[in-house]
Amino acid sequence: MPRPLQLHPDRLLPADPTTRSIARALYQQVRALPIVSPHGHTDPAWFATNAPWTNPAELLLAPDHYLYRMLYSQGVPLEALGVSSKAGPSSADPRSSWRLFASHYYLFRGTPSRMWLDHVFAEVFGMDVALEPATADLFYDRLTEQLATPSFRPRALFERFGIELLATTEGPHEDLVHHAAIRSSGWSGRVVTTYRPDAVIDPEHEDFASALARFAELSGEDVHSWSGYLAAHRKRRADFRAAGATATDHGHPTARTANLSSLEAEALFGRIIGGSWTAEDADLFRAQMLTEMAAMSIEDGMVMQIHPGAFRNHNRTLHATHGRDKGADIPTRTDYVHALKPLLDRFGNETRLSIILFTLDETSYARELAPLAGHYPCLKLGPAWWFHDSPEGMRRFREMTTETAGFYNTVGFNDDTRAFLSIPARHDVARRVDCSFLARLVAEHRIEDWEAAELAHELTYGLVRRAYRLDAPRAEAA
Amino acid sequence: MPRPLQLHPDRLLPADPTTRSIARALYQQVRALPIVSPHGHTDPAWFATNAPWTNPAELLLAPDHYLYRMLYSQGVPLEALGVSSKAGPSSADPRSSWRLFASHYYLFRGTPSRMWLDHVFAEVFGMDVALEPATADLFYDRLTEQLATPSFRPRALFERFGIELLATTEGPHEDLVHHAAIRSSGWSGRVVTTYRPDAVIDPEHEDFASALARFAELSGEDVHSWSGYLAAHRKRRADFRAAGATATDHGHPTARTANLSSLEAEALFGRIIGGSWTAEDADLFRAQMLTEMAAMSIEDGMVMQIHPGAFRNHNRTLHATHGRDKGADIPTRTDYVHALKPLLDRFGNETRLSIILFTLDETSYARELAPLAGHYPCLKLGPAWWFHDSPEGMRRFREMTTETAGFYNTVGFNDDTRAFLSIPARHDVARRVDCSFLARLVAEHRIEDWEAAELAHELTYGLVRRAYRLDAPRAEAA
Amino acid sequence: MPRPLQLHPDRLLPADPTTRSIARALYQQVRALPIVSPHGHTDPAWFATNAPWTNPAELLLAPDHYLYRMLYSQGVPLEALGVSSKAGPSSADPRSSWRLFASHYYLFRGTPSRMWLDHVFAEVFGMDVALEPATADLFYDRLTEQLATPSFRPRALFERFGIELLATTEGPHEDLVHHAAIRSSGWSGRVVTTYRPDAVIDPEHEDFASALARFAELSGEDVHSWSGYLAAHRKRRADFRAAGATATDHGHPTARTANLSSLEAEALFGRIIGGSWTAEDADLFRAQMLTEMAAMSIEDGMVMQIHPGAFRNHNRTLHATHGRDKGADIPTRTDYVHALKPLLDRFGNETRLSIILFTLDETSYARELAPLAGHYPCLKLGPAWWFHDSPEGMRRFREMTTETAGFYNTVGFNDDTRAFLSIPARHDVARRVDCSFLARLVAEHRIEDWEAAELAHELTYGLVRRAYRLDAPRAEAA
Repeated sequence: MPRPLQLHPDRLLPADPTTRSIARALYQQVRALPIVSPHGHTDPAWFATNAPWTNPAELLLAPDHYLYRMLYSQGVPLEALGVSSKAGPSSADPRSSWRLFASHYYLFRGTPSRMWLDHVFAEVFGMDVALEPATADLFYDRLTEQLATPSFRPRALFERFGIELLATTEGPHEDLVHHAAIRSSGWSGRVVTTYRPDAVIDPEHEDFASALARFAELSGEDVHSWSGYLAAHRKRRADFRAAGATATDHGHPTARTANLSSLEAEALFGRIIGGSWTAEDADLFRAQMLTEMAAMSIEDGMVMQIHPGAFRNHNRTLHATHGRDKGADIPTRTDYVHALKPLLDRFGNETRLSIILFTLDETSYARELAPLAGHYPCLKLGPAWWFHDSPEGMRRFREMTTETAGFYNTVGFNDDTRAFLSIPARHDVARRVDCSFLARLVAEHRIEDWEAAELAHELTYGLVRRAYRLDAPRAEAA
Repeated sequence: MPRPLQLHPDRLLPADPTTRSIARALYQQVRALPIVSPHGHTDPAWFATNAPWTNPAELLLAPDHYLYRMLYSQGVPLEALGVSSKAGPSSADPRSSWRLFASHYYLFRGTPSRMWLDHVFAEVFGMDVALEPATADLFYDRLTEQLATPSFRPRALFERFGIELLATTEGPHEDLVHHAAIRSSGWSGRVVTTYRPDAVIDPEHEDFASALARFAELSGEDVHSWSGYLAAHRKRRADFRAAGATATDHGHPTARTANLSSLEAEALFGRIIGGSWTAEDADLFRAQMLTEMAAMSIEDGMVMQIHPGAFRNHNRTLHATHGRDKGADIPTRTDYVHALKPLLDRFGNETRLSIILFTLDETSYARELAPLAGHYPCLKLGPAWWFHDSPEGMRRFREMTTETAGFYNTVGFNDDTRAFLSIPARHDVARRVDCSFLARLVAEHRIEDWEAAELAHELTYGLVRRAYRLDAPRAEAA
Repeated sequence: MPRPLQLHPDRLLPADPTTRSIARALYQQVRALPIVSPHGHTDPAWFATNAPWTNPAELLLAPDHYLYRMLYSQGVPLEALGVSSKAGPSSADPRSSWRLFASHYYLFRGTPSRMWLDHVFAEVFGMDVALEPATADLFYDRLTEQLATPSFRPRALFERFGIELLATTEGPHEDLVHHAAIRSSGWSGRVVTTYRPDAVIDPEHEDFASALARFAELSGEDVHSWSGYLAAHRKRRADFRAAGATATDHGHPTARTANLSSLEAEALFGRIIGGSWTAEDADLFRAQMLTEMAAMSIEDGMVMQIHPGAFRNHNRTLHATHGRDKGADIPTRTDYVHALKPLLDRFGNETRLSIILFTLDETSYARELAPLAGHYPCLKLGPAWWFHDSPEGMRRFREMTTETAGFYNTVGFNDDTRAFLSIPARHDVARRVDCSFLARLVAEHRIEDWEAAELAHELTYGLVRRAYRLDAPRAEAA
């Protein structure tokens, strides 16, 4: 007999009956609010082509480094899970990969992946038994079958999920054909892009040269001169705004910023573009570009997101054989107080500028980020991110930021995912955890119940819309 | 209809009924104990002159960077809140500032400022409706009216608050006229000073030169020679002890200490006083002076407090326009293990020396501070400080220090405030949080109920009196 | 009337009734499981000679730096507690030391030492009154009396405690005579050794020269050549495996590793052995030796344990007068991401290699250790260690590692103690805290009850046996 799969209606709510009952009431008020997903990595081609997905291994497992990293840590080869390598796609049979996954599903006990997946299985696919070796084939068949039906196509799911807005992420070296196709298709789903210029800003990025070439092409600017390079950014930012973007995103090794004079910046750019740069030059250039991007954000109103602190591709061998984004990015200690100062010295008091800060280093929440966001007009705090996008991680985020930064210097939830089917699950977890935190404040008489209700709505829906300027007049492409 | 303002008698106590009932019983035993406030920044002139305060904007808002930093972070200009700048006092109408504050009061939901203020409104001023835009004028009028009455003068409130002792903070370059006036006035309130020599120790302090000149004047010593400079400290420390001081306080960028030979120290002082110092010289001098102060503490019995880790005046523009202490101090990572070693190498085993360590970096609680205080006879842990003087911050302090340092290497609560009216509120929060922590230990059968009762008394009243040597024979000025 | 001493059956379980009842049920299932103690510092001579212990001061107090560090921090001289110094054994009367301890026992309120000791008093010695000044003599007499009886000899207690395996720690410069004596005695208790080569790896260790000489002698190798030195390690590792060892242990100041070429390594060793090394050479040599040890572990299958981050002998004066391990080791910030990379670059993807990482820096749990262990096949997380081997410390460990690394990249509990009598108490605390954590997950519907039951068994018994390879064919000495 397989074990039943039932999502408990009170899951993630605190056990104490008083607090749970407050949390439950708050959750009821926000559970069905539309999903606003202002930061993520889904593939816009899905919504442009609306082509069906194939099977659960290729849809859920092979692209999700949250999942295969755990199995890899226990000795399961990536190839067997269908993960492609530099040599090409994996030759693993998808059903076999799925069975292998099912036989290791117990590894996820206590992790958010487990909660997200069970949500997907139960709510999206209507499964009522748990995934385990004995049910692996049942899951494989039932999911594959449903994925072939019209109601499981990307747009149908988008609508069923109640998504009001979904932001994807593209680089200035990428055209926005899928976004154009979505808009011209007449479909009403709001899928927007985000300007993520890392590949043309980071000289150490493996695609820097090719991205730069494509950047020149798409912008029509001479990206080899400092002024042309900046002009190219301005042009592409305008293109992105036309494709609905209201934000930029910057994934840097650290939060370092710089405030060079124009002359110094131009000289630095000369070394970068000439290929004669040192590691320090590269780092300084990334730092200076954050400040340049802030300057452009003041001009064009785009919100800046800074995502620092990941040591990318830590596993040298795996990077050599499998390339980027294979579950081997590891957080590092991240300083903000000194790192952001050059940018803040220049623009810190600008009320037109909005910078959303993220971290992988939770020690910075109470010590650095909350005090910074609780003072500087241009700074806000992004939600618990990546490894910390989890019940305990979100709880720590609230406990460590609220008392200094308040709720109103935060920006709601980001799912930050490429796992489209898990988006409702992730937002649901965030709503439950936020309502639980608010319920504790009410139960301990630290805020009133009506305030908690207002806050629950703000944390779910109000703050994200304002922080990402989603109500601002929306630029439309011709 | 305005919302009612009611302080719940069980506020801040845990929701679980068993634990709450234990916490409530503990709290009942300590709630009315006298307030001992051994570290703060109230103005002794208040108690010397006993002049009335004017209105809530000037009393509660304009001087309190906890409050205006939050509004500033949301784009409200400081001028509009009545905060003075280098150009002079703000020309804002106090009532308008107060209205502006009231309309942003929701920003403080979930922060300690909100709890403190509601306590002040309800308990000190007897307000029974919540502060919101619609009640802003009512608050302004009622508070202004009461402040004009005799029972709201500083000394009357001091007595009403049940303050047994209140320490202010002065520098060696300041005379102690207000303390003298208090003592000679015949008023029985015990207001003492604290020796805070930063301005004459930190060459990078903007007032260093002028403070040094005044230090020379007040001490009658040649502060330009190393021996004269040290003698001036000894003299002024004696003056402070005569004004009731039992402690010194040191607010340094880091916890760095040094243990130079006399010759090295003298040479370093020569560079400092000669004005030819480097940033490293300045840092080393501050470090060495902590050790010199420890040596003097062994002589004269004054307790040392070290408050490291704030990056002061982080907002360059605001510092230029508005000066120090405008809500732009940001905590930084702080090391103690290496930083304190030179001082500890010299005096660590001295049982006559007592150094109270504070931190803005909570990561040091369990990793560094509790192990240090749980070993060295001269070290004790100050309470959760500044950004961490909050329910969650205090809870983390207890959870992360108690298991290694115990309760008896801590020193009770510090309110560390210039907001005099909030002192009872702050002590009340600390008592509630400590009783809640103790209640959890009892509910989990980790300590006995009678031990918790003893500890609650110690954390509220016993430890602070012993740690700050308040029962020691008190020096009286002639 | 002395206070009663009663261990509450629900101690350490959460107060919320729902959660407590789940925790209690889980705990019932694991409380009586055998104790597997794969990492500790008990003296194998106890089990070899089975000689009786003498009195509680010499058994419980004088050797336990957890205890005397707390009294020392409050000004009690170590001599008075019976702690030996470099000048020789303390001349304190054991009964007087015990009385002094009893009169300071209140200092331990809220600490794990208090819980462990009360467990020892109640469960091992059957005491039913609390330790306090008035009962000090009663305790001294009752404990001394019992210690003289056969059922309190080391082997009898080992059996009574239900210990399935106990690992001690020895160096390659130590013979294993006690382990040989245990095995040849016919006693069935499984006491194994652990290979801890710090003294012959760390040039800054005070015993380096003498340890090296003895290492040469015991291995019969020329430890002054690089190849001989490595061969000596291989030989001694084999000797240790023959004495039951399945693991090595490495206590380094940092987690730094290196990946030098053979030529570079040999040159570095030349400087080390020639005595002409710098501090950086010493550090690099320790770093390189971790990688060499990993290489040998791949050959011989021994599990590696890395215990970094203690600043040893921080108290200079005490170290000079009393030597090592006197309660003056202080944790420091510890980086793993950069530090481990050289080793991981070489061996990170080796499924034959198993490295168990410990930390004294809790900030690394969620930020570095869980992400590393949740990816690399060779890495696992050791339990909350030393200062963090406490109810709050263990809870934080689970809360900060589980969501990213899962439970199955952890290895069960280590008591890491030389306090033999406290071993059951320490394992009991771990079982209670783990069951409480699991109970919260169940109460919040994050895992199912049957999963929690499986996990409780794994965390108590299954994981430790697999992680330390205790079921692998056991090498037996001739």
